[in-house]
Amino acid sequence: MKIEIFDTTLRDGAQGVGVEFSPDDRMRVIHVLDGLGVDYIEAGMITDPKSAAFFDLLAPVQAELECAKLAVFTSTAKVGTRAADDPLLQLAAAAPVPAATVYGKSWLYQVTEVLGATPEENLRLIRESVSYLAASGKEVLFDAEHFFDGWADNPDYAMSVVDTAFEAGASRVILCDTNGGMLPDVVGLVTDAVCRKYDRIGVHCHNDMGMAAACSVAAVLSGAMQVQGTVSGVGERCGNANLNTLIPVLQCKLGFDCIGARLSSLTAAARAVADAANLSFDESEPFVGGYAFTHKAGTHIDGVSKRPRSFEHIDPAAVGNARNTVVSGLSGRAAVIDKMRAAFPEERFSKDDPRVLRAAAMIREREADGFDYEDASASLSLVLDEAVDVRRSFFRLESLKVIVDENAVDSAEASGSFAASAVIKIAVGEREYLTAGEGNGPVNAIDEALRRALLRFYPEIAEMRLTDYRVRVLDSRATASAVRVAIESTDGRTVWRTVGVSSDVINASWQALRDSVEYMLKQRAE
Amino acid sequence: MKIEIFDTTLRDGAQGVGVEFSPDDRMRVIHVLDGLGVDYIEAGMITDPKSAAFFDLLAPVQAELECAKLAVFTSTAKVGTRAADDPLLQLAAAAPVPAATVYGKSWLYQVTEVLGATPEENLRLIRESVSYLAASGKEVLFDAEHFFDGWADNPDYAMSVVDTAFEAGASRVILCDTNGGMLPDVVGLVTDAVCRKYDRIGVHCHNDMGMAAACSVAAVLSGAMQVQGTVSGVGERCGNANLNTLIPVLQCKLGFDCIGARLSSLTAAARAVADAANLSFDESEPFVGGYAFTHKAGTHIDGVSKRPRSFEHIDPAAVGNARNTVVSGLSGRAAVIDKMRAAFPEERFSKDDPRVLRAAAMIREREADGFDYEDASASLSLVLDEAVDVRRSFFRLESLKVIVDENAVDSAEASGSFAASAVIKIAVGEREYLTAGEGNGPVNAIDEALRRALLRFYPEIAEMRLTDYRVRVLDSRATASAVRVAIESTDGRTVWRTVGVSSDVINASWQALRDSVEYMLKQRAE
Repeated sequence: MKIEIFDTTLRDGAQGVGVEFSPDDRMRVIHVLDGLGVDYIEAGMITDPKSAAFFDLLAPVQAELECAKLAVFTSTAKVGTRAADDPLLQLAAAAPVPAATVYGKSWLYQVTEVLGATPEENLRLIRESVSYLAASGKEVLFDAEHFFDGWADNPDYAMSVVDTAFEAGASRVILCDTNGGMLPDVVGLVTDAVCRKYDRIGVHCHNDMGMAAACSVAAVLSGAMQVQGTVSGVGERCGNANLNTLIPVLQCKLGFDCIGARLSSLTAAARAVADAANLSFDESEPFVGGYAFTHKAGTHIDGVSKRPRSFEHIDPAAVGNARNTVVSGLSGRAAVIDKMRAAFPEERFSKDDPRVLRAAAMIREREADGFDYEDASASLSLVLDEAVDVRRSFFRLESLKVIVDENAVDSAEASGSFAASAVIKIAVGEREYLTAGEGNGPVNAIDEALRRALLRFYPEIAEMRLTDYRVRVLDSRATASAVRVAIESTDGRTVWRTVGVSSDVINASWQALRDSVEYMLKQRAE
Repeated sequence: MKIEIFDTTLRDGAQGVGVEFSPDDRMRVIHVLDGLGVDYIEAGMITDPKSAAFFDLLAPVQAELECAKLAVFTSTAKVGTRAADDPLLQLAAAAPVPAATVYGKSWLYQVTEVLGATPEENLRLIRESVSYLAASGKEVLFDAEHFFDGWADNPDYAMSVVDTAFEAGASRVILCDTNGGMLPDVVGLVTDAVCRKYDRIGVHCHNDMGMAAACSVAAVLSGAMQVQGTVSGVGERCGNANLNTLIPVLQCKLGFDCIGARLSSLTAAARAVADAANLSFDESEPFVGGYAFTHKAGTHIDGVSKRPRSFEHIDPAAVGNARNTVVSGLSGRAAVIDKMRAAFPEERFSKDDPRVLRAAAMIREREADGFDYEDASASLSLVLDEAVDVRRSFFRLESLKVIVDENAVDSAEASGSFAASAVIKIAVGEREYLTAGEGNGPVNAIDEALRRALLRFYPEIAEMRLTDYRVRVLDSRATASAVRVAIESTDGRTVWRTVGVSSDVINASWQALRDSVEYMLKQRAE
């Protein structure tokens, strides 16, 4: 049986703290979601003419989409006004997208206390707003806000809201747990009651009790044919139902069809949306996280190496993810051997191989200093090369000087007036090169100087660039703390991560930068 | 009805990627959890004599605890050996704590394929291990690993494991969803079947489907009297059931008693554990996150200002949290007014107040440049002061130079050999001061120089220190990207956060540092 996926990352997701999408970001997200095979994409909310102008950009986009219908989101008309006179509804009706979501109240408490309307007036607003949008030629989905609170308060009124929306021409009515305070059992029972009367019911859950996915599943098992949610569960307060979780649960565990064979692109799509939105990715996220199938406990690493089912509830490949193990004090030598076998598949490593012991000792020592290789596999691979005695020296740092000079008056707007320059001396084999670089900060200046020095030897350096740079203070209780710098780099095809640790942020940055360049050169040489 | 809370943050939580606890961290976490009122604290796992040595430190600690029993975690004896001869069980029996958790297999597939034992041998190992630990005087809790997979495979064998553990003297048998692949309905049904026979059943769920909390609740509703989980849900792969979520759901929504009136310390306890463990805190976490009751959408801000229930499923104070609103493009003027009223309670602000319009315009403009005030309320308060024209000038930057010089050979171990110095000229009123500072990096050096310059005017500066420093590249696609620097500072009593944005990391750092110092001076002056 097919369950529709309605994505609201660009609307409800954007209501999350720290979540923001530029028009370009929105375009990227729309294409990623369509590629994933979702049925609807809520592209944004109409709050004023400026937000409506974005929808004009979407006219040519809809034609390019393979799977998804784009939807505009707006509210029912204002109390005491006619829907046809409502400027926001007019803008929504004019938006060149095939679908519109309109939300209205279904909890009597909200109607009287927040909206300040009579129960009848609220029904009139819903009826007129839905039929006005439907008359514009759009498919209209009605979001019944606070539906489950409303049902608990007055089930007859809540049901009359659903009746009204369908009578006015809604294609779907979505039961919303707007406050996120419902338990799965309650969502299941109420959805069942509504689905006994109607068969085009959707569900929209929030995660304020950490149960948005479970509540959505309960609704589907009670007859809902559409689930709404966001990529990674971003959204207001504690977020929305996480589609990255819901889709594989519905498909792999319950046998519903959501996105068919495209499920195997789920992990890549989740990362692409996070990237487009500049959101940091929670690696412990179910199914799609980098840690979702990462084993750390020694017994687990041992177990999955014998029988994957022993510590994996599904095959990671089903969602486009992969098994991984991490090296840490907890996992011990088994994980180190695992990594060494992956790095040097032609070699054989026993538990007492001196190279294994050396690698384990190096990792232990550096982890004690604050290095974290769990998320810096490029740096780890250089450590393993060193342990196996095959680490190649592509270049050496002879000296490094950085100068930052600023004379501007103090003002928040004075950006751009600071300038950093770096002078670097690099040796490649017997030859030394002294180069200088300028940048908008010391790390940029060093990066620039290093590239200039190395380009003549390794022209492939030109293809590589830094995509992320993070600094963490390690011991926040000390005055002059050690810092850990994590760098993410790409050559446009793959992404790799390196790490550096020092009491000096420039030194730590240098280590991560050096590892990144060295890792790329090593990959190309192989 | 009482539901026992069993915390395994220090054991299963430590199996999460990036999670690590020093012995000092463990002591802090134990005291925080005891203060919160949990019933059991699993303090760690015995894997070798070194991990057993930690338990010797706990003998005096147990005596200080008010609520919690400390537990040691270990495995059943090895296949083919006697429990009494097992060195790890001997160490566990000798650990000076009142409780022991021992885990064993309850899924026949695991018994034959991973453990490589006969079904009878596995039962013998369970029986002997439990009774050996019980004979040492400990309360023994038996973790039935993979219980739900085991039940699906062979319910008779799974039940015989429970029978064996109770017969051997276990005080509780815990049904574990080790792989995290179960749905709440299944957990509920299976738990119900076991609870028809036994009344001392616990549940231990993993979050691989984002449903650990929902599954745990389902088990409690089916008769389980103990839930196991971790603070913030940290743990192997996608983590464990999140106690920060489970406890308030069980108490506030279902009327069970877990930690009684101590519930109002939940938010503080959750943060204290994250701090002790050096874990970053997910602000969108249900109940305890900084965003859990933070409203961003204009209609939501409007709603809660009229009636809190309209967009809050519980009173935030019940869990020691508080309502908040954020300023952003989405929320518009309502949120700005909200913030201005909070900052200047004696003033009145209407929607069209020129000061409101000025603040809204300033925020919009800076957010477009990349500033993010959602998590930098100290910087925001300075912007509001400026809009209201009461921002005080405590000091001005006249000039700034930074030099980093390094001559060491290139090696990962060369930390400490880099050195940065800063020369800063500051004006306070009519007086100018030129000072120099040294540090382990440019920001430290500037911080040092700034403090020296300001100390003679503002001796309270001595109490303040930086606790966190984060750099984010804003547009990761550009070569010379803008960076956002976020700084967290404390004077030992309160914590505040500031932000700076520039194409230059030193300039962005300076802005955040200046805001931090200015905010502190302003607070002290008030």
